[in-house]
Amino acid sequence: MKDFVIKGQIVDSESPDRLRIAENGALVVTEGLCRGVFPEVPERFAGLPVTDFGDRLVIPGMSDLHIHASQFAFRGLGMDMELLDWLNTYTFPEEAKFRDPGYAERAYGGFTEALRRSPTTRAAVFATVHPAATLLLMEQLEASGLRTCVGKVNMDRNCPDYIREPDPERSLAATEEWICAALDRFTNTKPILTPRFIPTCSDALMAGLKRLQRRYGLPTQSHLSENYGEIAWVKELAPDSAHYGDAYDRFGMFGGDHRCIMAHCVHSGEEELELIKRNGVFIAHSPESNMNIASGVAPISRYLELGLRVGLATDVAGGSHESMFRAITHAIQASKLRWRLKDQRVKPLSFAQAFWLATAGGGAFFGQVGRFEEGFELDALVLDDGNLFHPQPLDVRSRLERAVYLADDRNVFAKYVAGTRLF
Amino acid sequence: MKDFVIKGQIVDSESPDRLRIAENGALVVTEGLCRGVFPEVPERFAGLPVTDFGDRLVIPGMSDLHIHASQFAFRGLGMDMELLDWLNTYTFPEEAKFRDPGYAERAYGGFTEALRRSPTTRAAVFATVHPAATLLLMEQLEASGLRTCVGKVNMDRNCPDYIREPDPERSLAATEEWICAALDRFTNTKPILTPRFIPTCSDALMAGLKRLQRRYGLPTQSHLSENYGEIAWVKELAPDSAHYGDAYDRFGMFGGDHRCIMAHCVHSGEEELELIKRNGVFIAHSPESNMNIASGVAPISRYLELGLRVGLATDVAGGSHESMFRAITHAIQASKLRWRLKDQRVKPLSFAQAFWLATAGGGAFFGQVGRFEEGFELDALVLDDGNLFHPQPLDVRSRLERAVYLADDRNVFAKYVAGTRLF
Repeated sequence: MKDFVIKGQIVDSESPDRLRIAENGALVVTEGLCRGVFPEVPERFAGLPVTDFGDRLVIPGMSDLHIHASQFAFRGLGMDMELLDWLNTYTFPEEAKFRDPGYAERAYGGFTEALRRSPTTRAAVFATVHPAATLLLMEQLEASGLRTCVGKVNMDRNCPDYIREPDPERSLAATEEWICAALDRFTNTKPILTPRFIPTCSDALMAGLKRLQRRYGLPTQSHLSENYGEIAWVKELAPDSAHYGDAYDRFGMFGGDHRCIMAHCVHSGEEELELIKRNGVFIAHSPESNMNIASGVAPISRYLELGLRVGLATDVAGGSHESMFRAITHAIQASKLRWRLKDQRVKPLSFAQAFWLATAGGGAFFGQVGRFEEGFELDALVLDDGNLFHPQPLDVRSRLERAVYLADDRNVFAKYVAGTRLF
Repeated sequence: MKDFVIKGQIVDSESPDRLRIAENGALVVTEGLCRGVFPEVPERFAGLPVTDFGDRLVIPGMSDLHIHASQFAFRGLGMDMELLDWLNTYTFPEEAKFRDPGYAERAYGGFTEALRRSPTTRAAVFATVHPAATLLLMEQLEASGLRTCVGKVNMDRNCPDYIREPDPERSLAATEEWICAALDRFTNTKPILTPRFIPTCSDALMAGLKRLQRRYGLPTQSHLSENYGEIAWVKELAPDSAHYGDAYDRFGMFGGDHRCIMAHCVHSGEEELELIKRNGVFIAHSPESNMNIASGVAPISRYLELGLRVGLATDVAGGSHESMFRAITHAIQASKLRWRLKDQRVKPLSFAQAFWLATAGGGAFFGQVGRFEEGFELDALVLDDGNLFHPQPLDVRSRLERAVYLADDRNVFAKYVAGTRLF
């Protein structure tokens, strides 16, 4: 079932700076893993079934390193505030609704279907504090065929009572129960520990989450250095920490011995960046969100030069759209404005770099994912750009760039995740 | 034919800062002009035929104050350069193709169909230097039902020979012939004088265009203060001008006695702004283009406070997309990054302000257009947001904001231009 050949106009990343294009190429897959891209099917794979997508584009699936499933319901709304006011005014009241399983079923159903149709094949997902609703989301995602890490959110301080977990003990007990249920039930949908961010998590909660991290060998995800007000607040709350990242690290919740994603890192200082590098923390760059709630622009091309691990994210609902295509264009556009308005020492992102972030950069969090190299899991999108009018033939590279700027769910013709075709 | 009532969830702008919402309202139209929005159809209009769009949104049509029809063919491509290199590398070679009428027919056909399906009802359009192709574009636009001003471009210096008009005399003769043909043939598609920008137009050409402007009473459009390199070049080319705007004004090609659009105005100084105000020049704010070719962000909320006339524009192909919805979100996003990265004295644009720019702000260039006030021409869009998933009911204002962030051509259910329904 997972041994086959895909033919088409095949593009992936050779490096963070370079696309690799195989016109009318043949992508060989065995046991769900890529065996390479060839001009013709090699003799030794001659018996495999071939799906010929003709002139359509075949590219790696995209990994969304930071998306709030619970906020999909209010995407494109309420973008007139900065982070902390935005959380209190829009986000917390919306997230509180997931107490109601009927609401959760509807809301997560819409989210899952949109993600299934989108360019995303893998995602790191925030749910809410509610274990039942989080399991429900995981059930839907498991059924979708996508591969995801999903987090029940932890927060036991500095948020409204209606959404706050009453104390660290009950938060941890509910979390452990959720972890066990999730590990038991799902194959492609993994639990990920999700302290919302330092302001909403007490020291006792963080210490307890580390114990759970060790006990179950789980990855973690959270937010880091997104907004000036937030950073100042963390400094007040954790006066002994050298920086925001250190406030996670002193609990062992900042990578190092486990996989860890930190969203944003817009305003990370040098020490924080060094720790991110040392601990192998993945940065989830969320350019549209960072525009919409006026946080700023992370200097991504500098992070790449420093050798940090960076992926791209939609951050719905700070970002309005679940499409990773839009995340790519927003990443390029934001980097150009940062270059123009703030600092010409940090170069704008090229198209090839932003494409790499969306595929290989974020894919690395999930293993060997996001390129068509030998041994990589086959995550692929087949794009039909036939409805994107052009008066004359275009080369494959141009077609890809144009599709990323202009395509929507109508253009995602087929999708493979870990060697299985979803549609 | 042009006397009727539209029912629906009606939204337009009360002022640049305020939306006006009539839930289940009735918009009365006679002779193609709005007579007002009422809770019920008033007695005196009781005999008019009613089209009831039910729960759909009814909003004013949008005016795109700056779009290059000839660049639609390479939208979403080649965005790795600043303005002057971008012109030489991508734009001029592409525009040269419009010498060939077969190519022009295909390319402009795709453009016109996309614009017809888009949220745009009126547009100020750049063609190329080629008169025959420009007339062909105007024929297609006339047939589309849209209302547009279209400009044959003038340029007689500082551009490659293959696209340069050989001398001012022949440029002016071709332009006058084109004007006469256009005035003769079209009703809803008006010629607009279009010197590309100061660098490509000799003094003799500008002086001659002013004579044509007077003789035929035409509006004008051009580019202004988009990019630092361009501004420095204009300073060299027109050393006696006080500023870039003055380089147009000394030829009388900067509003005052005629309607005039200047695209961009990203880096306009105080004197230039004063002249823009005194002459009633319309500013075509092109936020996506100004990101893509790294020009910067115009301080639009300041321009509004100064009482300048500002509209919104897609500026395809500096902008990748012809949708004015995207122009609205880009305008808001760019203004937030400008506020965060450059200058906190200039407030970000609110949703209401950006919506006003796209409808009433730009509409004013075309007359009484862009609102549902008594006496305004009826330009309207009916939006069906049924496919934009939401797990619970939303109020009309939220539905509009969300649709602008998320909708595409599939959501434009019906469109009226000057009292005529296009689809």
